[in-house]
Amino acid sequence: MAKTYSIADCPVAKTLDLIGERWTILLLRDLLLHGPRRFQDFQDSLTGVAPNTLSARLKSLEDNALVRRQLYNERPPRLEYVLTEKGKSLGPIVRSLRDWGVKHLSDKPTQRK
Amino acid sequence: MAKTYSIADCPVAKTLDLIGERWTILLLRDLLLHGPRRFQDFQDSLTGVAPNTLSARLKSLEDNALVRRQLYNERPPRLEYVLTEKGKSLGPIVRSLRDWGVKHLSDKPTQRK
Repeated sequence: MAKTYSIADCPVAKTLDLIGERWTILLLRDLLLHGPRRFQDFQDSLTGVAPNTLSARLKSLEDNALVRRQLYNERPPRLEYVLTEKGKSLGPIVRSLRDWGVKHLSDKPTQRK
Repeated sequence: MAKTYSIADCPVAKTLDLIGERWTILLLRDLLLHGPRRFQDFQDSLTGVAPNTLSARLKSLEDNALVRRQLYNERPPRLEYVLTEKGKSLGPIVRSLRDWGVKHLSDKPTQRK
């Protein structure tokens, strides 16, 4: 029988545990595409996400050192979410998901005849 | 304001709709690593997956033309799940998840002091 990883040891499974949730990877996509983002920016971009879900996902990304919060002493104070170096290193994963989608799921729902 | 994809149009989101579920991507991992697999092989490899969940995920992969079933006329007949060309093209996504996990999540639960 071919060698196989157990779920607990598998690096694919462990990576998914961190970022596999749908909103989480879309938050990462926004940060990779646009750079630092405010809470409101995410709400504008991710149609349908509940604010408490968004907060929980950002907290989880912070807890895993993928995102940090940056406070600017302006009036009013401005809070932004910024990718850490570890967070930026997720770029190839998000790009591979995008590239595949562009190539294989090209039926655009907004396209007209 | 920076240009952004709506969720419906975003190729990252559309790819995740197809393969973002945890067991689904682990099934793909097994098929990419080991080639054709029987139902029982998945059950042995994916500790904790319920048989009806496994059936549903395999059906979804078939419906999306990522996996096909191959029946061998042996005694007893042997049924295997095989990646299609479209399914094989998911290789870079699974590899990017694995590479990141190997690099950033290297704390091995079985490692001793």
